[in-house]
Amino acid sequence: MFRTHTCGELCLLNSGLKITLSGWVQRSRKMGGMTFIDLRDRYGITQLVFNQDVNTVLWEQANKLGREFVIQVTGLVAERSNKNANISTGEVEILVSELQVLNESKTPPFTIEENTDGGDDIRMKYRYLDLRRTNVRENLELRHRITFETRRYLDEMNFLEVETPILIGSTPEGARDFVVPSRMNPGEFYALPQSPQLFKQLLMVSGFDRYFQIAKCFRDEDLRADRQPEFTQIDCEMSFVDQEDVLNLFEGMMKHLFKFVKDIDFAEAFPRLTWHEAMRLYGSDKPDIRFGMQFVELKEEVSGHDFVVFDSVPYVAGICAKACAAYTRKQLDELTDFVKKPQIGAKGLVYIRCEADGTFKSSVDKFYSNDDLKTIALKFNAQPGDLILILAGAKLKTQKALCELRLEMGARLGLRDKNVFKPLWVIDFPLFEWDEDTQRYYATHHPFTSPNLDDIPLLNTDPGEVRATAYDMVINGVELGGGSIRIHNSELQNRMFELLGFTPEKAQAQFGFLMSAFQYGAPPHGGLAFGLDRLVSLFAGLDTIRDCMAFPKNNSGRDVMIDAPSVIDQSQLNELNLLIDLKPQTVKE
Amino acid sequence: MFRTHTCGELCLLNSGLKITLSGWVQRSRKMGGMTFIDLRDRYGITQLVFNQDVNTVLWEQANKLGREFVIQVTGLVAERSNKNANISTGEVEILVSELQVLNESKTPPFTIEENTDGGDDIRMKYRYLDLRRTNVRENLELRHRITFETRRYLDEMNFLEVETPILIGSTPEGARDFVVPSRMNPGEFYALPQSPQLFKQLLMVSGFDRYFQIAKCFRDEDLRADRQPEFTQIDCEMSFVDQEDVLNLFEGMMKHLFKFVKDIDFAEAFPRLTWHEAMRLYGSDKPDIRFGMQFVELKEEVSGHDFVVFDSVPYVAGICAKACAAYTRKQLDELTDFVKKPQIGAKGLVYIRCEADGTFKSSVDKFYSNDDLKTIALKFNAQPGDLILILAGAKLKTQKALCELRLEMGARLGLRDKNVFKPLWVIDFPLFEWDEDTQRYYATHHPFTSPNLDDIPLLNTDPGEVRATAYDMVINGVELGGGSIRIHNSELQNRMFELLGFTPEKAQAQFGFLMSAFQYGAPPHGGLAFGLDRLVSLFAGLDTIRDCMAFPKNNSGRDVMIDAPSVIDQSQLNELNLLIDLKPQTVKE
Repeated sequence: MFRTHTCGELCLLNSGLKITLSGWVQRSRKMGGMTFIDLRDRYGITQLVFNQDVNTVLWEQANKLGREFVIQVTGLVAERSNKNANISTGEVEILVSELQVLNESKTPPFTIEENTDGGDDIRMKYRYLDLRRTNVRENLELRHRITFETRRYLDEMNFLEVETPILIGSTPEGARDFVVPSRMNPGEFYALPQSPQLFKQLLMVSGFDRYFQIAKCFRDEDLRADRQPEFTQIDCEMSFVDQEDVLNLFEGMMKHLFKFVKDIDFAEAFPRLTWHEAMRLYGSDKPDIRFGMQFVELKEEVSGHDFVVFDSVPYVAGICAKACAAYTRKQLDELTDFVKKPQIGAKGLVYIRCEADGTFKSSVDKFYSNDDLKTIALKFNAQPGDLILILAGAKLKTQKALCELRLEMGARLGLRDKNVFKPLWVIDFPLFEWDEDTQRYYATHHPFTSPNLDDIPLLNTDPGEVRATAYDMVINGVELGGGSIRIHNSELQNRMFELLGFTPEKAQAQFGFLMSAFQYGAPPHGGLAFGLDRLVSLFAGLDTIRDCMAFPKNNSGRDVMIDAPSVIDQSQLNELNLLIDLKPQTVKE
Repeated sequence: MFRTHTCGELCLLNSGLKITLSGWVQRSRKMGGMTFIDLRDRYGITQLVFNQDVNTVLWEQANKLGREFVIQVTGLVAERSNKNANISTGEVEILVSELQVLNESKTPPFTIEENTDGGDDIRMKYRYLDLRRTNVRENLELRHRITFETRRYLDEMNFLEVETPILIGSTPEGARDFVVPSRMNPGEFYALPQSPQLFKQLLMVSGFDRYFQIAKCFRDEDLRADRQPEFTQIDCEMSFVDQEDVLNLFEGMMKHLFKFVKDIDFAEAFPRLTWHEAMRLYGSDKPDIRFGMQFVELKEEVSGHDFVVFDSVPYVAGICAKACAAYTRKQLDELTDFVKKPQIGAKGLVYIRCEADGTFKSSVDKFYSNDDLKTIALKFNAQPGDLILILAGAKLKTQKALCELRLEMGARLGLRDKNVFKPLWVIDFPLFEWDEDTQRYYATHHPFTSPNLDDIPLLNTDPGEVRATAYDMVINGVELGGGSIRIHNSELQNRMFELLGFTPEKAQAQFGFLMSAFQYGAPPHGGLAFGLDRLVSLFAGLDTIRDCMAFPKNNSGRDVMIDAPSVIDQSQLNELNLLIDLKPQTVKE
């Protein structure tokens, strides 16, 4: 037996008890004839004491212990004179009478502390040591807790977790599919699923009624800041439901998670915002509503004042930053530089300071009188001391830029507290998106998304106005999940394909399999999927999903710890009937 | 709203209630002016009634409903005159007042009944319809329940579920690895894990203490009867434990599953059998102990009677089949043919009938007197009416043949009841297996398995006798799971590699990564993995793991439903820098 207790559980009540602990040497302090060692395991830290006067041999052994040595000790629990209120075991220490080194350790390449001295690269290379750090481990404990509570809730709601296959077929449009050559079927390939979408809809055809799966998904694409080639979804689907049923059930799930994982109660229903409203008020389909600072559109008010910048564009809108009228020239220049960054792309920034005396000072005083500015300020309900920031340009582009400015101001004003959670549903997404380049409509979600039945007459007359029965759950500006009610009627499905420019042949090639299944009695159904990695990151207050994964890959899709991917033996390639044909043009710039 | 209730919940208490149901038309019976329809959903079947006299139009509509149509009905719950005690809803029926066809269905290619008329191939092609059959769905419900209860138990025991990556690196010996070409890293490949072994041991180095994962694993090999290219393991690892800790904890898990999934209580500890005892008594390392019929070794008793068959071989042993003395000549010939089958490989079968009058009749009467046979019968504790069956030959081969004969007799005598569960642990496996061909030892499990510390002196003198601290859980003759205590001491590990014929270079190439991690303070650890598919099959009483998977592949590794694997576009191959190079010799015979 290696231990009677863990390093996280002993307290004053255990005083006088003879116990055995095992763990890692976190740190060691020699103070005269006393040596103190912090012994660490997953559950906590307990202080060990070695006294030269009591046992010189043991004390000498203790002095030889290096950081991260694995040891086993036996001793008496005793009250500490110098208590540490920061840890649960801080009132006691162990007077060690026996010590065994279970394993030695080389000096780790970085400190195993919350604030480590190790950079990203070295920590990823030695991820197994990085995972020893309490804060990193806590992220994975949180992940476990979230998946466990997700399952508990969905099980209570009669959902069945069904494993769908990882080795599936590649679709003609599966440009981002990872493929897997089959040894038993020479020249043929499996693909790894980008999501279990096909299979979950099949399970509805099978009458499974309520399905979920915490499923690994794969996408072979250039990895932007916060993407991983393999990621995890909480994937769900229900039969005989409409949008209201789905929203209620998964709002319930999120409330369950907040309650049982974060101890936060949401008494009220999550607010719902149509996509149009979200764009109008926040310039985003995933608004961060931890703070207001809603957009105010000003085109009408600002037109006709000979200010060509405003007169020449279709869209002028602004936000009001509370109590920022005292922003310096330098601060305002910073904001101007911010919105002019290429990835934001505004041409400039107009400001109006609402002075304490009720007057206004703006960067467009030449064109607008104090009364004009007052009228504008009234629209924002701005108070003396506030700062109004205005952008102008093409509508969508300017909305996006203003959204970024709003988020930036929210951050500067400390309005984006990671411990505050503001969920909402965004609903009524447009069914189609118009693409200027190809001059045609594309499905905003996927081609099985059902239109709002009220909008069916618009399908032929004004497709761009048709609302989808699609919905996203957004928390703090993060799209955590989304889904839709699916089309189960083959006539409507065919019309959709037509509108999306699919010939019957192309539709058959790409979706034929699911369409065949739908001929045998498909129930009305719908569902959604949550990004587990994002959900955990949000709950943990992390900036990247990487930190909530045990063994993430870097931006090049590499696991630097195990050095994967890598070249494989020629004999393996032979067995798979493959030749490598490296083309110079595929070398990445 | 599509329904107020499901098809599995209405009963007499609901009489008079107006309800709405949705589901599939299971069957339809027209009896004069009454039409009865069984409406099915995941939860059950409810009878619908349409009465010509009450509503002719509705009745006519009902008569047009085909099998597997999806409908929604509203009506009153009424007591049935003709009750069906077999189903929970059998006391009521619905007097339908509204009917809506939600979706039509083509006639399915086989009947959606427990005993379907569909063969294996067609059911796999239309797996989404096969899954509608109650017994198939119940297997997946059971699977859900087992994984849920597994997680509940392990969570209570402080295990953390950690997702390890699916895209990992290929190992030099990874002959059965599925590989995945990386687009971002031209010419390089990921591999899919055959198990998370490496990562779970790393997590122990990381101090995770108690890890589990219900993990997809992959193996690209010819698929024998009951193998799948992707399969699922309950994968577990613990730190600071010895074998006793692991056995107790996972015996607890199995008892938990039996209790909460099957409502079966195991008060007693699972018996433990050493590998040597298991081989001696049952000729198998996964004995079915639902019945006795243990082997009795007879070499001593049968030698020296001029019977050259017994005299010339090292091993003679038999089993005693209760009350089978009356087996006919034909039955005995069948058994002889059975043991002579090539896959069993015995040369012949000797029988001794224990007659009711206390005399004996055997196939070797020429060599053995009645007293000789009595002596043998005594060793079996055979009673009048019993039948003794004896095989002879090389020890291991004969043990295996006798094991098959024992299982065959157990089956014939109805001693292998699928509703009876007899678990045991098999322990003390040999650490090494001698290979005659290459004249060297191989690791019975994997090279990180710790020897029994008492046997360390034997490592140099008699490696074949060294016991591993490895263990298997066996239920009803099925090896459900197994594992070992791992070596955490690098000196011992190096000796192991030496004994296994690994040069330091080869050990470094194949295991270097884990060995490096072990230099930073590896705790003593051990674990095991259960085959989830086998576990579910056992609980469900299935003959193949395929039946407990939602979308299994066939013996060629094909998913015939989605027709995967398949050829992929040349453009995809180009992006992956691959050429297909089909070699004639790789075409399968």
